[in-house]
Amino acid sequence: MPKPDTLPSSFRPAANASAASPASPSTLVTPVGGADGRVRAVVEAVLPCVDGGRFAAKRVAGEPTRITAHCFTDGHDVLRVALQWWRDRDGNANTAPAEATEVAMEASGNDEWVADFTPPEPGLYRYTVSAWVDPFESWRRELERRVDPQDIRVAARVGAAEALAAAQRASAARDRSDLTDWAQALERGAQAEGDADMLKALALDEAAAAAMRRHPDRRFEVRYPDALPLRADRERARYSTWYELFPRSTSPTAGVHGTFRDVEARLADIAAMGFDVLYFPPIHPIGREQRKGKNNALAAGPDDVGSPWAIGAREGGHKAILPELGTVQDFRRLVVAAKEQGLEVALDIAFQCAPDHPYVKEHPDWFRWRPDGTVQYAENPPKKYQDIYPFNFECDDWRGLWGELKSVFEHWIGEGVRIFRVDNPHTKAFPFWEWVIAEIQRDHPDTIFLAEAFTRPKVMHGLAKRGFTQSYTYFTWRNTKHELTEYFTELSTGPGSEYFRPNAWPNTPDILHEHLQGGEPAVFMARLVLAATLAASYGIYGPAYELLEHLPRGPGSEEYLDSEKYQLRHWDLERPGNLRAFITRVNQIRRENPALHADHRLRFLHVDNDQLLAYMKHSADGRNIVVTVVNLDPHHPQSGWLRLSAADIAATAPSTSDMPASQPAPPPADWQMHDLLSQQRFVWQGDAHYVLLDPHRSPAHVFVVRRRVGRHDDFDHFE
Amino acid sequence: MPKPDTLPSSFRPAANASAASPASPSTLVTPVGGADGRVRAVVEAVLPCVDGGRFAAKRVAGEPTRITAHCFTDGHDVLRVALQWWRDRDGNANTAPAEATEVAMEASGNDEWVADFTPPEPGLYRYTVSAWVDPFESWRRELERRVDPQDIRVAARVGAAEALAAAQRASAARDRSDLTDWAQALERGAQAEGDADMLKALALDEAAAAAMRRHPDRRFEVRYPDALPLRADRERARYSTWYELFPRSTSPTAGVHGTFRDVEARLADIAAMGFDVLYFPPIHPIGREQRKGKNNALAAGPDDVGSPWAIGAREGGHKAILPELGTVQDFRRLVVAAKEQGLEVALDIAFQCAPDHPYVKEHPDWFRWRPDGTVQYAENPPKKYQDIYPFNFECDDWRGLWGELKSVFEHWIGEGVRIFRVDNPHTKAFPFWEWVIAEIQRDHPDTIFLAEAFTRPKVMHGLAKRGFTQSYTYFTWRNTKHELTEYFTELSTGPGSEYFRPNAWPNTPDILHEHLQGGEPAVFMARLVLAATLAASYGIYGPAYELLEHLPRGPGSEEYLDSEKYQLRHWDLERPGNLRAFITRVNQIRRENPALHADHRLRFLHVDNDQLLAYMKHSADGRNIVVTVVNLDPHHPQSGWLRLSAADIAATAPSTSDMPASQPAPPPADWQMHDLLSQQRFVWQGDAHYVLLDPHRSPAHVFVVRRRVGRHDDFDHFE
Repeated sequence: MPKPDTLPSSFRPAANASAASPASPSTLVTPVGGADGRVRAVVEAVLPCVDGGRFAAKRVAGEPTRITAHCFTDGHDVLRVALQWWRDRDGNANTAPAEATEVAMEASGNDEWVADFTPPEPGLYRYTVSAWVDPFESWRRELERRVDPQDIRVAARVGAAEALAAAQRASAARDRSDLTDWAQALERGAQAEGDADMLKALALDEAAAAAMRRHPDRRFEVRYPDALPLRADRERARYSTWYELFPRSTSPTAGVHGTFRDVEARLADIAAMGFDVLYFPPIHPIGREQRKGKNNALAAGPDDVGSPWAIGAREGGHKAILPELGTVQDFRRLVVAAKEQGLEVALDIAFQCAPDHPYVKEHPDWFRWRPDGTVQYAENPPKKYQDIYPFNFECDDWRGLWGELKSVFEHWIGEGVRIFRVDNPHTKAFPFWEWVIAEIQRDHPDTIFLAEAFTRPKVMHGLAKRGFTQSYTYFTWRNTKHELTEYFTELSTGPGSEYFRPNAWPNTPDILHEHLQGGEPAVFMARLVLAATLAASYGIYGPAYELLEHLPRGPGSEEYLDSEKYQLRHWDLERPGNLRAFITRVNQIRRENPALHADHRLRFLHVDNDQLLAYMKHSADGRNIVVTVVNLDPHHPQSGWLRLSAADIAATAPSTSDMPASQPAPPPADWQMHDLLSQQRFVWQGDAHYVLLDPHRSPAHVFVVRRRVGRHDDFDHFE
Repeated sequence: MPKPDTLPSSFRPAANASAASPASPSTLVTPVGGADGRVRAVVEAVLPCVDGGRFAAKRVAGEPTRITAHCFTDGHDVLRVALQWWRDRDGNANTAPAEATEVAMEASGNDEWVADFTPPEPGLYRYTVSAWVDPFESWRRELERRVDPQDIRVAARVGAAEALAAAQRASAARDRSDLTDWAQALERGAQAEGDADMLKALALDEAAAAAMRRHPDRRFEVRYPDALPLRADRERARYSTWYELFPRSTSPTAGVHGTFRDVEARLADIAAMGFDVLYFPPIHPIGREQRKGKNNALAAGPDDVGSPWAIGAREGGHKAILPELGTVQDFRRLVVAAKEQGLEVALDIAFQCAPDHPYVKEHPDWFRWRPDGTVQYAENPPKKYQDIYPFNFECDDWRGLWGELKSVFEHWIGEGVRIFRVDNPHTKAFPFWEWVIAEIQRDHPDTIFLAEAFTRPKVMHGLAKRGFTQSYTYFTWRNTKHELTEYFTELSTGPGSEYFRPNAWPNTPDILHEHLQGGEPAVFMARLVLAATLAASYGIYGPAYELLEHLPRGPGSEEYLDSEKYQLRHWDLERPGNLRAFITRVNQIRRENPALHADHRLRFLHVDNDQLLAYMKHSADGRNIVVTVVNLDPHHPQSGWLRLSAADIAATAPSTSDMPASQPAPPPADWQMHDLLSQQRFVWQGDAHYVLLDPHRSPAHVFVVRRRVGRHDDFDHFE
């Protein structure tokens, strides 16, 4: 046994842990994973985490990102836990670099630890968590409970050893000397057999503790094996309001091909309606070979303009502009003019070729050739799409193909575009998307990609995991209360909520849902309110939507009659009954209510009528609460009792685990419901509230909830 | 463009994929993860998977293990998916070895794929999933839908190219020549411009398809990045019935120290009660220094026998036997005699030392020394446990310590023991457990470890993840309907159900729950039925349990008065009112009903009385259904309406996704409930059923559900 006056080995100042292991007979003893066997802390379940770290969770730059982990150790020792995060500039940094930022994590109960970090700018980040058993804190916590004088003396000497070890670790000379002094004082006090209470007070000295905490013993630190990726986007990735427009239909004169200059004249109007993204179908030269005619006729007439998605002709391909729309200078001017109105131009990227696309001649190896010497066009037997040649992603020159397709994005980024709506990404190889989005966002972190994939759930999720910033959804086909409740509950709370950002569209040039084909304004209004308040990002295909365009090409068809996809249209924007004022108001409500700027924190409310859908959203700080009620029946007034209690409203306040500093507000006895559509105000109290919506007046309430701040029953006292 | 009569490059017979890539200008184009860019298939979400593959899921050897995965690709091509599994003998094989077994996975809808494999024997296994786009199957599916003669001719030539490529891949000469012949026939048919229907029939020829399927084009196969671990145990890991006994209290003569020979005399009786594991507290020499007296008194008298958990004295330590119990020969004889009765002996491994344990002198470096030259005993200030020295898992010679502790398990394995109940594992380092269990199970795959950790949930789960076969639970403290429902729903369906196997104990030598302290037989019976039917593994500490031992050491204490932990006891096994017959019957019911042999497939049933708890379990094949109803009130008869419908019973039949071959049985109009405790039989029909349980007669029903097989209302026609 060691003599009392020599420090036993376990109290020797820390040397390098791995070097400290003596030769042992059991040289085959190696912990699973290969760490030092003395590492006793455990880190598990670091969140957010998508597919075990294979894909990035998505957040927004400038906003706190909450990281949680399960950390514990054997026995009762005190654990310390730290979050490390860093910008990952090359996309594969799995170990924390020297410039990683470290943040102490706090225990939030049940062995769960929590910390926030705020990605300062758009980009890819990584984070990991490390933990260690803290001998000093463990010693200090035990000391606080000690009462026996002899125990306190022994503990003081243990503390002295810890202090000497910390002094050796200290880089600052001041800490070094302070800790050495403190260690000597503790030793002297322990030897002196004097007042144990005074010795305990010395051992619990706060200044000494602070110095000790600056030099923790992290020899036996464990680090979570994965550095998890997190993609921070700019705010528009989370909250955006899209307007889709065919530039060729914007001429003020019927029958004349619209131009970018014509679009410029529309910008103020579109911005005034409250949109912030202006999205164009493809603007490239349109193939002449196999061109489709009006209403998708197999043969085009000489005046037919063709489908913008049949990309490429002798004038050029994916980097060229259809001459009828204008020049590249016109396009640049338009991008700048839009920006001045608060509108961002989004382009449609459809990676497919018309038969006369220059690629077909220049890169025949990018296409699949049939034994009869023709190119394999798109088909789904017996259906054929002879005007579309898909790329062959299994071609030998896949590297050349990928590089060229990437350069298409880069070309338009060079022209000032930062938002791309990608056409049918689910018919192109998944590894390509993962690569190209990472490449583009590495160099241009503010780029946004919207996936137009209307396909099976796992395929849509697969695209979102691989980098698409936003995704089209099934919203267009979800109409009943049950469908909408189930779908948006999944979107807002399911695993996809970490990476799949819905962008809800009541219509698109491809989808005129049966529901809209009756042309009732109440349906158009209800569907718009649903999209605009259920989803933080939504869009309409206009002017078809605000003008209540509703005739299908034929019975059972979801295609528009005389669709702009195949012909010019001339829209009478002032047509009576148009929804422009309504859309303007809804978008204004969206802008003014942060509750509607995120997809999380959505909660459906019970109404005892299946035609009435009600839900509540609130802002991260709990200060803005919006309750929307929609009558899904366009024909009849519907009424019912909506359940909403003071406790429900109080629950929107950030909980202590969400925001440690604040306290939940006491539940109000009553509160005001201010319908931002009708400007009516109601005072509600209790748990059940009568609501009635007449679709001939308004199919929806969009209430902001105002809490009572005054003591009297006076509307002015809500805020 | 290639000439029609030369095969374009995309139809060239397969060469090595990575070698086939030509030099490209975009040499920097590398897919994320580094695979070939032409690999278009995706494999995600392979299950079961614990913490992203960090830990093993647990199953039983000889039983089918279901593996699922999400697999898809872009577009509409046909995917093929295969499961590979293999025995991992060295514990770190992350890539499939040559001897891996491959099983085709079947699509079960929604891009989910499924296959089963059956681990043939206990051990560690790994599995992974690979998928590839199958050009032949894609071609064949499209061909089936083709109608245009020219399309069929072109398709035939495409098929011919695929067949030639397959012929090159074929190892069997017969397939090679058959496929070459078929390719030539297809080419000739396509050139001949003859009957397209005949050509289509030739192209869809089943024998040719079978040959093609023997040589699939797997150049662009993707493999899931992880080989997931799965631990297959023997059946007793899933289903076991434990009896804990202090050997020293088995002497037929009061006041005499019991021996292994005395235990031998008890074996037939314990086996007859239906137990299959006989577990002893530590059997080692008991320390004399700081020995505790009766009822945990600080000072022991000269005749006090001490606590078996104060391990080690001059006679030896963890590998020695307390001389009073007998010799090692006696122990060996006991192990064999127990086995003959169908009982397996389980030992208690408590890694801690009495002050006079030989380790303290021989390996002082394995303990934490205090500056006053004493060893740091266990304490939780101000509580002190001077009779227990914990090991210091942070000692420099941790390798030596780990190796020695491992050798303790190996020693007893050498003496025929294969089940270890580990004392307080949560106070020893986690990496040690992960290592030692993997080491032991690698060499002795039939070893079972039960973790005695009554601590925080994540710590208990952390131990189970790191290898403990079974775990003690909170059952002992879960008494109300709400508590039991919530806890066992979590255990049977939560993430822990992949790795945490509960072993439920109504009492232990450390825990006499307040609930039992009234001594009512109904409480003891109800708690036993709950443990035995809610958990597939359960145990009792006897004879205290069957003799209704219920006096605590003092008010508010969970310790037994005159606990065997500190003194000899003499039990009157025939004491009137003992529960031996009842326990025997419950264990017989367990043995005869496979529904009770697993923790999954537990479903709680609604009863409109909070004192009545009801639940249903069924066997994997759906043929055995057990419904248990327990009256939680020991004082009063309780009655209520239990909800159970014909559809609920029909739902226990294996679904098509569980067992593809079978069909769900049509719901019976009525069925028989046979109470295996009272032998009463009831015919139930409809959805709600009256139940009444008088605790003074029986606090529980354990019904087996018999489906009607005859057409008449005759009890004999249920089975």
